[in-house]
Amino acid sequence: MTTLVILHGYYRSSASFRVRIALSLKGIACTNVFHHLRRGEQRAPDYLRVNPQGLVPSLEIDGKLLVQSLAILDYLDETRPQPPLLPTDPAGRARVRALAQIVASDIHPIDNLRVLNYLRGPLSQPDAAVKAWYNHWIAEGFAAIEAMLEASSDTGLFCHGDTVTMADICLVPQLVNARNFDLDLSTYPILKRICDAALALPAFERALPTNQEDAE
Amino acid sequence: MTTLVILHGYYRSSASFRVRIALSLKGIACTNVFHHLRRGEQRAPDYLRVNPQGLVPSLEIDGKLLVQSLAILDYLDETRPQPPLLPTDPAGRARVRALAQIVASDIHPIDNLRVLNYLRGPLSQPDAAVKAWYNHWIAEGFAAIEAMLEASSDTGLFCHGDTVTMADICLVPQLVNARNFDLDLSTYPILKRICDAALALPAFERALPTNQEDAE
Repeated sequence: MTTLVILHGYYRSSASFRVRIALSLKGIACTNVFHHLRRGEQRAPDYLRVNPQGLVPSLEIDGKLLVQSLAILDYLDETRPQPPLLPTDPAGRARVRALAQIVASDIHPIDNLRVLNYLRGPLSQPDAAVKAWYNHWIAEGFAAIEAMLEASSDTGLFCHGDTVTMADICLVPQLVNARNFDLDLSTYPILKRICDAALALPAFERALPTNQEDAE
Repeated sequence: MTTLVILHGYYRSSASFRVRIALSLKGIACTNVFHHLRRGEQRAPDYLRVNPQGLVPSLEIDGKLLVQSLAILDYLDETRPQPPLLPTDPAGRARVRALAQIVASDIHPIDNLRVLNYLRGPLSQPDAAVKAWYNHWIAEGFAAIEAMLEASSDTGLFCHGDTVTMADICLVPQLVNARNFDLDLSTYPILKRICDAALALPAFERALPTNQEDAE
């Protein structure tokens, strides 16, 4: 089987950032193909044949073409189990998946570039309203995650125990993104502590937007 | 272990609808606790202790409290494997998860009640603009799913083969919701065919919003 792995991504895409972290943690070398989202390159016909949503990331691996970052994380974990991205017990797995999905379903898609562009374009919203929108959904989600982490003895150095899981892989890119929007993270001390611990790991550091070849 | 299962939901919530389908498919009896989202009951302090996001569904099961519908589906599938909600091969699982997540991450959260309320409230958008917003994100997502289903020989009576998976469990509630917004589904013939096939099954039919005790 070919070992060529191709990641279609964009340096500022949080969902691409998640997959970069997982590939790095699992030691999977990949070739990057960059699609400049702000120039609309993800809507090019050639790329729409790869990913009909016109979104990044997409991952070519094992002769398959995979889309949707969380589905990709699960695939990588099922086919390359070390190090695991999920705990082994069903309740722990459900907790990690829930934390990941608060970010991946209830924060990120609402604050994503295409949605902010719709606010600016068809809805003619000024920058201040767009920023208030962004901050509103971040605050809703981060406050809930902070409360869940605070309430549970499962919380450790990372979201679930002392090793990295899918929850951290989703959380850190959203926190890095929020920092770029000048958001004050001091009201989320557990999130901030976990983010700092994760970014001290080479796999997270290497995956940072500013460390990508297409960074501007 | 207690066998009492409690589903916190709301009849019109698509995410609650997903969990109702899964519980029904797996033959798990549950007690329903209803939270009237349009009256803001999900923000009551008692419920925020159950689910700090103030969203439905939440599921009390096996002495655990679970949140986020897709995490709940995975938990149910891991602890009650029959009938399975995912195929057994990693590539098939990734395909099913990706289809589920297009709905659960890239359509539903953007068209959810709380987001539409933000458009109507803080952004003072008229009904026509809110409806255009709703239809825009539905069209983006449904067109991609239709293209993915059309392009793959894995598509069968349902999204993946001839048995129900998580993909159908996410898709059908979104299609039912779109019908309530008077959306014309004729441009999505495969989605419509799968939705009709699923709603012919008792587990889907019983889970319909109109068949819930709190339906108005």
